[in-house]
Amino acid sequence: MLLHLSTWSEIEQYLQRSRSIVVPIGSNEQHGPTGLLGTDWLCPEIIAHEAHKRADILIAPTFNIGMAQHHLGFAGTISLRPSTFIAAIGDWVRSLAVHGFEKILFLNGHGGNVASIEAAFSEIYAEASFAKRRLGFAMTLCNWWDLEGVGELARAQFPEGHGAHATPSEIAITQWALPETIKTAHYTPQIAPSGPIREALDFRARFADGRMGSDPAQASRERGGALVTLAADSLVREMDRFSRETVPA
Amino acid sequence: MLLHLSTWSEIEQYLQRSRSIVVPIGSNEQHGPTGLLGTDWLCPEIIAHEAHKRADILIAPTFNIGMAQHHLGFAGTISLRPSTFIAAIGDWVRSLAVHGFEKILFLNGHGGNVASIEAAFSEIYAEASFAKRRLGFAMTLCNWWDLEGVGELARAQFPEGHGAHATPSEIAITQWALPETIKTAHYTPQIAPSGPIREALDFRARFADGRMGSDPAQASRERGGALVTLAADSLVREMDRFSRETVPA
Amino acid sequence: MLLHLSTWSEIEQYLQRSRSIVVPIGSNEQHGPTGLLGTDWLCPEIIAHEAHKRADILIAPTFNIGMAQHHLGFAGTISLRPSTFIAAIGDWVRSLAVHGFEKILFLNGHGGNVASIEAAFSEIYAEASFAKRRLGFAMTLCNWWDLEGVGELARAQFPEGHGAHATPSEIAITQWALPETIKTAHYTPQIAPSGPIREALDFRARFADGRMGSDPAQASRERGGALVTLAADSLVREMDRFSRETVPA
Amino acid sequence: MLLHLSTWSEIEQYLQRSRSIVVPIGSNEQHGPTGLLGTDWLCPEIIAHEAHKRADILIAPTFNIGMAQHHLGFAGTISLRPSTFIAAIGDWVRSLAVHGFEKILFLNGHGGNVASIEAAFSEIYAEASFAKRRLGFAMTLCNWWDLEGVGELARAQFPEGHGAHATPSEIAITQWALPETIKTAHYTPQIAPSGPIREALDFRARFADGRMGSDPAQASRERGGALVTLAADSLVREMDRFSRETVPA
Amino acid sequence: MLLHLSTWSEIEQYLQRSRSIVVPIGSNEQHGPTGLLGTDWLCPEIIAHEAHKRADILIAPTFNIGMAQHHLGFAGTISLRPSTFIAAIGDWVRSLAVHGFEKILFLNGHGGNVASIEAAFSEIYAEASFAKRRLGFAMTLCNWWDLEGVGELARAQFPEGHGAHATPSEIAITQWALPETIKTAHYTPQIAPSGPIREALDFRARFADGRMGSDPAQASRERGGALVTLAADSLVREMDRFSRETVPA
Amino acid sequence: MLLHLSTWSEIEQYLQRSRSIVVPIGSNEQHGPTGLLGTDWLCPEIIAHEAHKRADILIAPTFNIGMAQHHLGFAGTISLRPSTFIAAIGDWVRSLAVHGFEKILFLNGHGGNVASIEAAFSEIYAEASFAKRRLGFAMTLCNWWDLEGVGELARAQFPEGHGAHATPSEIAITQWALPETIKTAHYTPQIAPSGPIREALDFRARFADGRMGSDPAQASRERGGALVTLAADSLVREMDRFSRETVPA
Repeated sequence: MLLHLSTWSEIEQYLQRSRSIVVPIGSNEQHGPTGLLGTDWLCPEIIAHEAHKRADILIAPTFNIGMAQHHLGFAGTISLRPSTFIAAIGDWVRSLAVHGFEKILFLNGHGGNVASIEAAFSEIYAEASFAKRRLGFAMTLCNWWDLEGVGELARAQFPEGHGAHATPSEIAITQWALPETIKTAHYTPQIAPSGPIREALDFRARFADGRMGSDPAQASRERGGALVTLAADSLVREMDRFSRETVPA
Repeated sequence: MLLHLSTWSEIEQYLQRSRSIVVPIGSNEQHGPTGLLGTDWLCPEIIAHEAHKRADILIAPTFNIGMAQHHLGFAGTISLRPSTFIAAIGDWVRSLAVHGFEKILFLNGHGGNVASIEAAFSEIYAEASFAKRRLGFAMTLCNWWDLEGVGELARAQFPEGHGAHATPSEIAITQWALPETIKTAHYTPQIAPSGPIREALDFRARFADGRMGSDPAQASRERGGALVTLAADSLVREMDRFSRETVPA
Repeated sequence: MLLHLSTWSEIEQYLQRSRSIVVPIGSNEQHGPTGLLGTDWLCPEIIAHEAHKRADILIAPTFNIGMAQHHLGFAGTISLRPSTFIAAIGDWVRSLAVHGFEKILFLNGHGGNVASIEAAFSEIYAEASFAKRRLGFAMTLCNWWDLEGVGELARAQFPEGHGAHATPSEIAITQWALPETIKTAHYTPQIAPSGPIREALDFRARFADGRMGSDPAQASRERGGALVTLAADSLVREMDRFSRETVPA
Repeated sequence: MLLHLSTWSEIEQYLQRSRSIVVPIGSNEQHGPTGLLGTDWLCPEIIAHEAHKRADILIAPTFNIGMAQHHLGFAGTISLRPSTFIAAIGDWVRSLAVHGFEKILFLNGHGGNVASIEAAFSEIYAEASFAKRRLGFAMTLCNWWDLEGVGELARAQFPEGHGAHATPSEIAITQWALPETIKTAHYTPQIAPSGPIREALDFRARFADGRMGSDPAQASRERGGALVTLAADSLVREMDRFSRETVPA
Repeated sequence: MLLHLSTWSEIEQYLQRSRSIVVPIGSNEQHGPTGLLGTDWLCPEIIAHEAHKRADILIAPTFNIGMAQHHLGFAGTISLRPSTFIAAIGDWVRSLAVHGFEKILFLNGHGGNVASIEAAFSEIYAEASFAKRRLGFAMTLCNWWDLEGVGELARAQFPEGHGAHATPSEIAITQWALPETIKTAHYTPQIAPSGPIREALDFRARFADGRMGSDPAQASRERGGALVTLAADSLVREMDRFSRETVPA
Repeated sequence: MLLHLSTWSEIEQYLQRSRSIVVPIGSNEQHGPTGLLGTDWLCPEIIAHEAHKRADILIAPTFNIGMAQHHLGFAGTISLRPSTFIAAIGDWVRSLAVHGFEKILFLNGHGGNVASIEAAFSEIYAEASFAKRRLGFAMTLCNWWDLEGVGELARAQFPEGHGAHATPSEIAITQWALPETIKTAHYTPQIAPSGPIREALDFRARFADGRMGSDPAQASRERGGALVTLAADSLVREMDRFSRETVPA
């Protein structure tokens, strides 16, 4: 089910049979000369929506703006500061907990989100810890590229030039789902440089066209389709595993 | 243009010809026995995406979670606290300002967002005011039902039972755009009661099925289509007017 | 009763017979060439103190600094940022709730406060909503010009040039209460311009002497007295209505 | 001058001849069986308003709610948390700095405010310190009982039973200014106990009628008048001294 | 016991026999031409660790960074803003309260910390006060120079030139404990000037070598040893007194 | 150099020859039946202090309380919430930047700190990114077990039962540095279980004696010494590499 296309009573019924939910979360940020600004939130949304066709799982609306301060030197990037991001994740989670959700999986599409999402989880857990009480629900973070088998497939598809940002795998996924948006561009070098991530102007000075270590022209719709299929199946299994996890008394 | 389906260099080019952007903003909250949880963010998204087919305007990703604390008594509602909402709007706006956007129009789909959005604007303006400097950009809030002619049309379509929440006009819009999601349900009374808005449990006690003053069964795809067409045209004019507004020296 | 001129045991006794309180709230900000900086907090204070002479209602100290960031370009304006204002309103309200007040009416004298006050109410309600509990008290916002009959009288008194800031009606009220502070000045145009509200320097560029759409020279003590009398009576009725409001179980 | 009874252009003119301002600041909290809830903000207001009759000094509106969490066990107390108080003082001060005030003296009427006011000053100074720039203005905190000669007079008037809260000196001041509010009550013991200040319920358990170490029945209008006269004169001198203080280059 | 050199089960056992703990707290800031940057956190640490050799008291890790914004003009100073400091003290205290500590004494080594520490205590107490509940534990602030007899000894040792910052007494304590770090320097004037504390650049302009009113060359290891011995004994007595303090029902 | 044992002028001189500094950072939290509560801040302090004997590097005071909310179920743990931790790291870093430090390396001793430290870095970088300016300094996070060669040595020393918390390698380091604090205890199972990290009560239910996957009895002073020696040498090289890193124009 897609939560936003359901009524409240349909969700109330869903909660009778499951207490689990997937929240696609990403970022809206530059993705090099050919990647869509929405790449990092579109990928988890695409995978999660594909998964919901295969199993009775519930997908929340997509959390589409994340922590992308380092990309602000490129037009179109929208970023939350970590402190804002942590507060917003907290309100999403506490809203879901009000309704009785007990297993909340964030399917993440942006490496730059990881630290802030984990800090947000700790902020929420800490409320219970300082109050000496059980929280009553659990959160987990799952990057789509860490879903079972997905990283292996991406490495097999793109043995060189996969890189860390504006990767051919993520671009392939958006190509598969949104073929009308496929872009091409000339860029050099073929494989972009690597380096540390600092503030936006430093980033732009290091990574002139926005890519990090990647050669996104290797992307293709077919490869994207294979990644989505594998990731959707893995997500269904991961949700099943997480849902079954028992909490010690 | 849809920002999230563009590359950063396409946005850079857009900024050569326009400094204006529309941000659809809404809420994910219960909408009575038949309305979609996503109604309030889907409506401005639908209208804005329709408008972008008619004119060279730029549409940001949709800000899909707003201030809906009073709806938390119904499953599926996700809300930010006003303080979180204000912080997040601030980060969105400051991101867009980094790129040189000078006119930022929030096309809003949720009455409960209005106070927090305006407070967020004041929070941003105050930074410049306390620093004794010009801000360099302007924000405006536009509820879709306040677009020129739209309120009149809605009142003509639904002279009785329009109400204030889970209205037939907003539901008609989602029916037009997403006909596969049309839901039906029996409800009584035909026109829901009215009353003040307080905390979630008070709200649920007053408004048993989530409607406020409305009879959403009057919605139809045709009426939704008429509303969207009118609203999209009005939005294009409104953006033109806002874009041309000059700022005193 | 005036809370600040009472002892704690007198308030304890008052709470035996009533759980309601009025909080006058305004702003300290420029009011054009002749208006007092305190106009917006003096008006609700004057009206509330007049009302307490006519009925057994309790008046809190006046919340005298509000959200006036746009007036900071004129000397003497003191403003809270919305985030600070929301926090402070929260602490006032939570203090009153500790003592058992169940109906808290903010009698407001400044249009620029409205969004932040409503956001503050939502912030407080949200605590209960996220905790799945009843709050136990209710807040309401009442602008003095929205009290029953008052807007009509002001429009009748000042059919042209009432405007939106430094209005003849608010200035008339301070003239009635504080005749020794009446100021005169030449200004042009007779009726000030209108326009949007942004940051302080933008505001000053648009509204050179601080007025918005108004011709405050129309104010007179007599008109002020008529407004206060009507407003005080209406406030007593409004408090009675609010106090009697029952909360659904 | 009283700022709130002036126009913005009168303040602009004042700033041509002086860059100094007094902000009366206090608290609204229980003051024992006979003291007014407003005592702690009325006293500095009374003294400052008296001083402004004697010299060309400018008095801001009164900051009437302070840090009184420990008094919340007694009806009528309204308190800010320290964090809110610090934020609000910051906004007041930054507003005044926008207009060019360079010497801001807080005339304080509540011992419980001292730590938070000083922390607020440090928070403001820290902005400049972290930015490696000069601040351009200075703040100082002056408790009215620390004004030159005032403490000595109070000790002479009330050699025993002055105490620390609901003191005869502060009550005498309100009696002098507001004789119609004088209250009487029987209380025992004649001199209230002393002890540490903790949370509100602890406070009420230690100090049953709200007094700390005091015997407020010793207050009289005459003694209050003598205190106000001396304090007002001292305040004028203190403002003169502070205004003349030069800042090292 | 030193908490950080204990296991959790040793602390659990300690809590069977005592619910009290000492937290050494200070600042890392310039201390004139000869004083160590760590002076203000080393002194309370030295005294507390000496005390724990003489009695069964528990010493927490040292809170080594405090509120030293005014010293940021001198290399090596590290400061928290008051708001950060208050939040951090809150988390320390709430952590200790989770384990059942009921008496938490902060042994402070920096005058600039006092306001923020007291504000932090009030922030914590206020949580209970607004919630109408007992807190269950108490905090107290004790500056080492206010321990019984210590101020008298310091004044006897240094009748002139003790001053307020980079004092011979605090430097003597570090000399006693860390003789290998003793520094010498020529400075003039022999006794440093006094004056108000503002932002960092103002401070450096007033106090060229960092001293305030002091002549630290009077320090000696022997005097430091006498101070530590006396302070450690007084701390043991103070902890005993605080531990025995009963809380009213 | 140890910053806290230096004077401000010694640091000023150091800044003439280097702009780099190491900040040992850890946590104070339970470490199983035999580990010290201070283990996670002692380890980076021990390594950094050892390194400073071998090269001209500057070591800041130790940041001794980190993010350990999940350990609050065991006595003696002291934790900051992530939001507090982020604010405090920000103030440390901004203080160092005031003095001109350009390379700030946090040598971390607690895995639970990683997300919050990285979020803190992003929060700081974001200030510059939103302001469209260069930051002027860089931060890096280095866990001591990730220093070149250290992980390999630990795995060779403890091929089984190293685990993730209360590991034999960290305990060996404290044994080497503080042999008088070596503790022994019987525990079962020999190798502790593994599992997810949630709130404190969940953690204690999963990990009864506090260990995660470890068998700390394998620790020895000799192994600790080998780890420290290797880590100190690697840290010197890492600081050299980081210090030499050039920033793109």
